[in-house]
Amino acid sequence: MQNANSLYEPEGVALIGSSKIHEKVGMTSPEMFESVIHNMTKFFRGETWILDVEGKKGYKTLEELPSTPDLVVIMLPPRLSLEQVENCARNRVKVALMLTGGYKTGQRRRLLQLKKEYGIRILGPNTIMGVINTANGLNTTFERDVMPPKGHISIISQSGGVGACLLDWTCHYRIGVAKFAFMGDKVDIDDVDLLRYLAEDASTRVICLYLEGIEKGREFIETARKIVKTKPILALKGGATKEAARRARSHTASIAGSDTIFDAAFKKAGIVRVGDMEELLDAAVALAKQPPLQGDNIAVVSNVGGPAILAADAIVRNGLKLAIISGKTRREIEQRYPGVEAINPIDLIADARAERYSYVLDKVLSDPNVDGALVINMLKSCYFKPEDAPAIAETVEKHPTKPVVDVPAGGEDFALVYDALRDTNIPLYNLPEKAARALKALQTYHATLQKVK
Amino acid sequence: MQNANSLYEPEGVALIGSSKIHEKVGMTSPEMFESVIHNMTKFFRGETWILDVEGKKGYKTLEELPSTPDLVVIMLPPRLSLEQVENCARNRVKVALMLTGGYKTGQRRRLLQLKKEYGIRILGPNTIMGVINTANGLNTTFERDVMPPKGHISIISQSGGVGACLLDWTCHYRIGVAKFAFMGDKVDIDDVDLLRYLAEDASTRVICLYLEGIEKGREFIETARKIVKTKPILALKGGATKEAARRARSHTASIAGSDTIFDAAFKKAGIVRVGDMEELLDAAVALAKQPPLQGDNIAVVSNVGGPAILAADAIVRNGLKLAIISGKTRREIEQRYPGVEAINPIDLIADARAERYSYVLDKVLSDPNVDGALVINMLKSCYFKPEDAPAIAETVEKHPTKPVVDVPAGGEDFALVYDALRDTNIPLYNLPEKAARALKALQTYHATLQKVK
Repeated sequence: MQNANSLYEPEGVALIGSSKIHEKVGMTSPEMFESVIHNMTKFFRGETWILDVEGKKGYKTLEELPSTPDLVVIMLPPRLSLEQVENCARNRVKVALMLTGGYKTGQRRRLLQLKKEYGIRILGPNTIMGVINTANGLNTTFERDVMPPKGHISIISQSGGVGACLLDWTCHYRIGVAKFAFMGDKVDIDDVDLLRYLAEDASTRVICLYLEGIEKGREFIETARKIVKTKPILALKGGATKEAARRARSHTASIAGSDTIFDAAFKKAGIVRVGDMEELLDAAVALAKQPPLQGDNIAVVSNVGGPAILAADAIVRNGLKLAIISGKTRREIEQRYPGVEAINPIDLIADARAERYSYVLDKVLSDPNVDGALVINMLKSCYFKPEDAPAIAETVEKHPTKPVVDVPAGGEDFALVYDALRDTNIPLYNLPEKAARALKALQTYHATLQKVK
Repeated sequence: MQNANSLYEPEGVALIGSSKIHEKVGMTSPEMFESVIHNMTKFFRGETWILDVEGKKGYKTLEELPSTPDLVVIMLPPRLSLEQVENCARNRVKVALMLTGGYKTGQRRRLLQLKKEYGIRILGPNTIMGVINTANGLNTTFERDVMPPKGHISIISQSGGVGACLLDWTCHYRIGVAKFAFMGDKVDIDDVDLLRYLAEDASTRVICLYLEGIEKGREFIETARKIVKTKPILALKGGATKEAARRARSHTASIAGSDTIFDAAFKKAGIVRVGDMEELLDAAVALAKQPPLQGDNIAVVSNVGGPAILAADAIVRNGLKLAIISGKTRREIEQRYPGVEAINPIDLIADARAERYSYVLDKVLSDPNVDGALVINMLKSCYFKPEDAPAIAETVEKHPTKPVVDVPAGGEDFALVYDALRDTNIPLYNLPEKAARALKALQTYHATLQKVK
């Protein structure tokens, strides 16, 4: 998108705020300004200048800066922000990122005029948190010290709150992120622009969207349909019900169409639609780490019985099948481990450790009747230990065309095995139902690839 | 149930195992024996005797004990276990709790004979973990130092693995538990017996079941239908799909009927059916802490826009409605907080703290148009702090007939607010969709109460 690479890869950034102004109702405050300065100073590896329009921090005007920044971050009440954007536009700043909200229709129109007149690109207003690029440390959020780890998932959120929640989730679970963007009111830079940027971005492997409305429907569908040939796109739609859609209109000034239309649009675009934020990131992790699921025959390999039965239920409910393990595979497993009955779901029995998991999983993934696997390895009531977990990741790597997801079911057990495996290519889920849904997303993406080829 | 109070409230317990025997495939091992001894010694406030049948720990035979225990916990391979149960039965032990599995049909039949002949009650075999009673510290699990906090939720699991997962979850999230039972093969003590016990148990307010099959269908329904007049029962059914049901048959030797039959049975019994383990505990916490939902009009009170729209979607999808806030309530809120538009979902704006939450929530819960509320209080992108959270709990207590659920959406944010509120009466969820489902469970239980009255 023209000029807009500077949104994620600026050389110099000016932070334009005020150490004095505190809006009565609204986001502008000296604390917010301080926090954005804190994060940019701490994380960003380019130039950062501070521009304090009514106060004494750093510079007073854009003209005083040693050189013109390509990105400005504006966090002021609407009237003052507009003055700043106009001045930045005249000075050939490439992108204005507007964090604060409360803009009236006329003010939003004025911003669009400035873009048309001067070519300045605008993200927002009302983006709340702006952008994050884990590659160069760009972080315009006002949540001090909040930075997700580097990775391959990029997230575009129309809502500050949903974006903040997704950011919080990626930090808490150490999910690797490439780029974040909070879109806000979308007067200029929108989903289509950001999708085009992420399509070219080498570090982005999976794109997650939170949307309340889409303006340029046809362009959005065409752009997405091209991108999904190489990178899966996942979408969560807010305002899916009539009642919530009414509210979404006033929330981000977007025209939310009927949900059926969105469903059709997502299908046409090859976008995988999800039901909530957890499912969005669960599916994203699976798509970032594992290959698409080419068939529908899933093997369940577990050291406990009940959760394996719940997994089997979830597999069937998601339109997948329980693989029929071939006679050869079955004989090999049962001869080696008397007591284990290698009928799917395969119960390895509670005393299974790394060796048994590796052997059985290797045999199962070599079986032509099996397209993918759901592994359950609980600690409680079993002999499995977190140090047994890496053997599973090693076995999975030997079968690069068959996806595997892993379920150390529970709370503490999940946390312990998650710590041992989160930096490997194994996606981890705390319940079998979530793992089955992730496998379904891997299958849906495979079907998409066949369709858009 | 006759004799069987001793299952949860024994005066003396004998732990019968071996410090030498290690089954090749199976659970019996000196480590397991040691771990159960460790837990009982650490937690149980009655008498505990150790009976080491092939080794040198404690006593050698039941007859050597200073007095006859009312409960014995047996953790030996099938043949040896049978000998022990027979001897216990002759010695008038009241209950035998059998942890280990691997029993053949004939062996299970023999256990039943012993019960009929001597009146000994049997839980198991194959219960894996046995029972927990947080009131007297009885804990026959072999997970060292694992003990959930005291509370009002009781759990009965037919599967050791599912039970272990639920136990792990209650410990990790510090969810208050009254009693745990792992049923296993159910040769004698079954769901009906345990339900009857829990019906009389003063500390149990909510009962959670994990089932793969039910033998005494009519008795189960009749018993449950009586209990739900005072205590809600929640059920998760494993083997709900045909494919998984086939496996469940071999897993716990239970005859799993068609899922439609179970659905009808649960409805007739007034049992709330749930879809997974997380939903089971989410609903249980709501029912243990909040009153039933008497209408279907829900107010959403939030400091972020997008998650409130997702909450509105989830409310409508769960068959509930977005309450129409009355004109009076709306005027009171909007006059006090210019900028806040008190249309449901109510966006308190990102700078809302304890005072604004309390005032608005109090007005909303006083509104006759509102039957319950879903509160969202994020930290990230907002000014809300964990120390603002107790004010929400205080406000909710003023309106004891209207249920409220709270969503500090995300990972870190959830953990921080959870720490501040988990010991109050506010149920907490990390996503709006989970909170909406919990409200639905509160409404379903209200409908049940009307029906079984």
